[in-house]
Amino acid sequence: MKIAIQAIGLIHTDHKAKEEAPIQGTFHPDAMGTVEIFPEYAEGLLDIELFSHLYLLYRFDRAEPGALVRRPFLDDTPRGIFATRHPCRPNGIGITVVRLMERSGNVLKVSGIDVLDGTPLLDIKPYVPRFDCHPEASEGWFAGKERREKPSGRE
Amino acid sequence: MKIAIQAIGLIHTDHKAKEEAPIQGTFHPDAMGTVEIFPEYAEGLLDIELFSHLYLLYRFDRAEPGALVRRPFLDDTPRGIFATRHPCRPNGIGITVVRLMERSGNVLKVSGIDVLDGTPLLDIKPYVPRFDCHPEASEGWFAGKERREKPSGRE
Repeated sequence: MKIAIQAIGLIHTDHKAKEEAPIQGTFHPDAMGTVEIFPEYAEGLLDIELFSHLYLLYRFDRAEPGALVRRPFLDDTPRGIFATRHPCRPNGIGITVVRLMERSGNVLKVSGIDVLDGTPLLDIKPYVPRFDCHPEASEGWFAGKERREKPSGRE
Repeated sequence: MKIAIQAIGLIHTDHKAKEEAPIQGTFHPDAMGTVEIFPEYAEGLLDIELFSHLYLLYRFDRAEPGALVRRPFLDDTPRGIFATRHPCRPNGIGITVVRLMERSGNVLKVSGIDVLDGTPLLDIKPYVPRFDCHPEASEGWFAGKERREKPSGRE
């Protein structure tokens, strides 16, 4: 079963190349970006400004699915792709939580964004702490991992 | 730009019909389900059991994109689709956070799951509280909304 999806907008950031994109927005809360929703979908933004945080779903358009076990950016031990947030994954869909700063028509100004400039947007969902915040969750292998540069040569 | 994606597995739950599926897993923490990953992707599960909580990305396969403004299940005021978690949305991709109880090979036993039986799985990502837990986020129009039955006749 093949499913056809298409971009509903574009994400604009200062991260022009893979090498310079933050590994996670959490480590870069001040990274600003804009989310442009194509005019034909703009009506769906009604009341979006009631929310302080949003999920963005997007296409990893500069990554190809690859090995199912690989070393993530924040770790040097190979992990299963589903135990990582790595972009080179089956279906190539990314999710990130951003802070909504301002809405101007069909453009959202957001902060804490870790995606590449020009990334195709697939969906926006409100982040609702009662559904989405689980402070008791384990950190898994991310425990103790801190912001670092992407290891050189690691795709 | 059309993007082709495909299922990497299937989600099995006791929720056989739309009318009886929980509105949000948070309201039904004991709802159990299994996530079957197709054998060709099973290698990507390495170390998944290090995580207590997972994101499941899935296809709303029994919902069609529809009006961009509509009344959500938990509210009677029409909202923009991107200010809701409603299944009838462009691209029809759902996300939910579940608790991982147990792994047996390519099958994950999970709890707190709100999706329909037979739902196509698109991706699994580890839930990492440092990236994904934002207790300061506003509740938006969800504030004060409690578990309720789906309003009759509301698609």
